[in-house]
Amino acid sequence: MAEARAGFRPPRRTGGETVPLAEALHRVPVAPVTAPHALPGFPRSTVDGYAVRAADTYGVSDGLPGYLDIAGAVRMGAAPDVTVSPGTGVSMPTGGMLPRGADAVVMVEYTAEAMPGTIEVVRPVAPGDGVVRADEDAAPGADLVPAGRPLRAQDLAMLAAAGVTSVTAHARPRVTIFSTGDEVVPHDTAALLPGQVRDATAVALAALVTESGGQPVQAGIVADDPGRLEAALRAALASSDLIVISAGSSVGARDETAAAVGRLGPPGIWCHGLAIRPGKPTLLAECAGIPIIGLPGNPRSALVIFRLIGMPLVRLVGGCTAPPAEPTVRARLDRDLASAAGRLDVVQVRVRDGFAIPVFGLSALLSVLTAADGYVTVPEEATGLDAGTEVDVTLYR
Amino acid sequence: MAEARAGFRPPRRTGGETVPLAEALHRVPVAPVTAPHALPGFPRSTVDGYAVRAADTYGVSDGLPGYLDIAGAVRMGAAPDVTVSPGTGVSMPTGGMLPRGADAVVMVEYTAEAMPGTIEVVRPVAPGDGVVRADEDAAPGADLVPAGRPLRAQDLAMLAAAGVTSVTAHARPRVTIFSTGDEVVPHDTAALLPGQVRDATAVALAALVTESGGQPVQAGIVADDPGRLEAALRAALASSDLIVISAGSSVGARDETAAAVGRLGPPGIWCHGLAIRPGKPTLLAECAGIPIIGLPGNPRSALVIFRLIGMPLVRLVGGCTAPPAEPTVRARLDRDLASAAGRLDVVQVRVRDGFAIPVFGLSALLSVLTAADGYVTVPEEATGLDAGTEVDVTLYR
Repeated sequence: MAEARAGFRPPRRTGGETVPLAEALHRVPVAPVTAPHALPGFPRSTVDGYAVRAADTYGVSDGLPGYLDIAGAVRMGAAPDVTVSPGTGVSMPTGGMLPRGADAVVMVEYTAEAMPGTIEVVRPVAPGDGVVRADEDAAPGADLVPAGRPLRAQDLAMLAAAGVTSVTAHARPRVTIFSTGDEVVPHDTAALLPGQVRDATAVALAALVTESGGQPVQAGIVADDPGRLEAALRAALASSDLIVISAGSSVGARDETAAAVGRLGPPGIWCHGLAIRPGKPTLLAECAGIPIIGLPGNPRSALVIFRLIGMPLVRLVGGCTAPPAEPTVRARLDRDLASAAGRLDVVQVRVRDGFAIPVFGLSALLSVLTAADGYVTVPEEATGLDAGTEVDVTLYR
Repeated sequence: MAEARAGFRPPRRTGGETVPLAEALHRVPVAPVTAPHALPGFPRSTVDGYAVRAADTYGVSDGLPGYLDIAGAVRMGAAPDVTVSPGTGVSMPTGGMLPRGADAVVMVEYTAEAMPGTIEVVRPVAPGDGVVRADEDAAPGADLVPAGRPLRAQDLAMLAAAGVTSVTAHARPRVTIFSTGDEVVPHDTAALLPGQVRDATAVALAALVTESGGQPVQAGIVADDPGRLEAALRAALASSDLIVISAGSSVGARDETAAAVGRLGPPGIWCHGLAIRPGKPTLLAECAGIPIIGLPGNPRSALVIFRLIGMPLVRLVGGCTAPPAEPTVRARLDRDLASAAGRLDVVQVRVRDGFAIPVFGLSALLSVLTAADGYVTVPEEATGLDAGTEVDVTLYR
């Protein structure tokens, strides 16, 4: 598993597209976006008060106030129409533009209007006090956001402040999702015939693709027929950045999937079978430049594997080099977990009062996943974890 | 802050709307969704092997195999056309429907075709072995997903399995976003006049609204004029589930916002001013049934407050009673943090090598937020945190 996660890194990356700022949350810039000009762009008061020459306040105190003539007032959003000369001050709102001649703003709390047109100042200020420099938020040409990291809300704010109205971001990877299996029918099938099951996996995979920044493309259900599967996969190569097959679960269906994938082109199958439970029959391949994941037939196993292997791969293809952290919580195992050395075990758990309570059940059961709050992994080198062990639970969201 | 977070809980909730399953990720069901029928709906093999009567295998072993006649084979997705009578077995694929007469499936690994038409069985099975009961994933009428918890990928899978094609979910709260301030111009303003700043907050607030399940409605910039602000707010009440005002930052603008909100109707202002840094001038109100948040004028303070107060409120109005966990990481503070008792301090940090490194800077600077990986809070009762203290960093995503 460690080898697969670190080693299977197909070079496919999506190209750039222009994304308006209002739609750019979580999109991944292809290059750093730089500041077209200094920010905030002008020296700006951080307090309500008076713009002054700092030197005029040196030595003042409650007992020995300094006195300044009020030379005028700065209005929000407008260039000051006054300058500050020695012995004068200009009334400033927070966020206002510092007038020429001033080098500091003294807070209104440390002033009083001694008589009409004159203030007394009882605290000295140093040059720069109460002021944001014109380039203090960003110098011209400075990186506002890096490449490869999904944009966060504050990144959008910074870009907006700089007048950047759109971003060149990696296109969302088109992830084509195939289901196979003669027993599988579309999930909107109202009445099932005996032996049929609805396609539970595809809609959930699409959701996980969306969550990892991809664009799901539902390719529907292909019967367990190697020729038809190969033809369908081949047709999808041209319009996909990644292909996911939720495979039929019988041995035959699994082998057919591998055989069909193997014929699609070099370099071909990267591995078939992973030391993980659930999810052992996973297939990883790259054909004609397109990464392909063959998932186990059990919906539960398929979703476990797609979270661990598929979602990071969607992010990788989408240019994301700094994937967002998953929510986790520390908890104590409320019972022993057995495992085999050399195998990664993914155990579904509920979390209650600081305890991680394993949800056991057959890997065919989806209810084990829906009952869980998250999962715990038993590392490959461990033969199990004892009750009471502190574990990190990765929480679903 | 604790009081505000626990106590300001306006009763407004959005109504239900029908959402197709494919669009239902993270949507919040208004009521539990129940299983229309048993799942998987028929007894199902969990292994490749032979459907048998368990009693026929009692006492068998490698040294003393049992022998069964092969009565036929089950095909995937079809009702079995054979029954299992004493002394016979039926070939089963994983996921196939158990034929009548059988009560267990013996794994193919523990069988061998002794001669054409006959298998030997070397391990006994108990009734139920290798089989999922018809109602083992869900009994008819059982809750498949609860009300109030955003749907996760596996919840969609379960609903799909049950043939549920749409969900009645809380409508996304319509969150109307106002900006105020005479200095503020639309973020797509190409060239600024001296003293002007682009509206950095609104686009970021919209992103956070979306992230918390709401539907942002950009109402634009209102000049610092109490009458116009009141009129704009009043007009928005009818079409909003929540109103957010990113207020002008001057004292006057703040007071005007409070005055305008106060005139909108009962119950009115809930609090004006919070013991938090940054974000002290926050206003919380409820007018004519609509919750209203007045944010500080600094974009950075506004975003801090909206994450702490606004996003939970959007979720609440959207019917979410089990908000998803935030990603966090434990780290050690790399320096002392000072704070005042009785005030919650929100400190931006970068995380490197297990250390939380505070990013300091004026609250007017957005770059403090864009440089941060997450934030640490210094609790209200603390007067600071020492370097080396282990803290939980809430990570941005």
